[in-house]
Amino acid sequence: LENNDILIKQTDIVYKDDFVTAFIASYFIGNNSGHVIIVPNEHIENIFDMTQDVSSHIAQVSKTIAFAVKEAYNAGGITTLQNNGPDAGQHAFHYHLHIFPRHKDDKMYDHMMKKRETTPEERLPYAEKIKQYFSRIDPEYH
Amino acid sequence: LENNDILIKQTDIVYKDDFVTAFIASYFIGNNSGHVIIVPNEHIENIFDMTQDVSSHIAQVSKTIAFAVKEAYNAGGITTLQNNGPDAGQHAFHYHLHIFPRHKDDKMYDHMMKKRETTPEERLPYAEKIKQYFSRIDPEYH
Repeated sequence: LENNDILIKQTDIVYKDDFVTAFIASYFIGNNSGHVIIVPNEHIENIFDMTQDVSSHIAQVSKTIAFAVKEAYNAGGITTLQNNGPDAGQHAFHYHLHIFPRHKDDKMYDHMMKKRETTPEERLPYAEKIKQYFSRIDPEYH
Repeated sequence: LENNDILIKQTDIVYKDDFVTAFIASYFIGNNSGHVIIVPNEHIENIFDMTQDVSSHIAQVSKTIAFAVKEAYNAGGITTLQNNGPDAGQHAFHYHLHIFPRHKDDKMYDHMMKKRETTPEERLPYAEKIKQYFSRIDPEYH
């Protein structure tokens, strides 16, 4: 997968199983740096052609990732967001669910349309924090 | 259920089953009037205490509602959004998933923090459109 919205480098991946992959977004938003994107491994364009099995699994993994992002980044809350269709701001035509860390008075929506492209090096500490969280709660995680 | 964020009147309800209820939000956002909120019928505060069964069901119903909102309102797309914790803008402490109709150049995020309270009469045509959509696709719907 590679385009402006969904660019996955191996070092960005924080979770992967047979059905989905979760990774640090290649761009950061305002005060909500390091948000995570969950995508199905098979091609599903958006919610309109989502399958029941995959959506159930994404729902389950989104809770896991929400906990991880909150704890790893010491965030005050989590917002999940998912766009379908160009008019909704979907630019990568592969279903993707955003998991944003939220902080007090972060004014996220003021910055939502101003994406800041990042380097893999900038993203690395975020991926590391989440991986460390998973290692703490699950010794089998690697 | 009754507070600023989650106020359900019978006339707002567009879908209900044993596990979830979907209704027209009591406030409108900018150019995205008539968005729908899905809540579990049992008390679940947010994603952090969501159960697997309910999250799978919500995922399935969210697709149904996404289709309905898109078709009934002739929207260009759909954005789903879900806040967890006060720092994420969660003010009603019962899990709720927003299903927003999106329109070309609607600038939704510019208006996200400016909720416009509505009357049940203002919301009625939106509920009617969605109910009419369901009646068209499912003659059993009532």
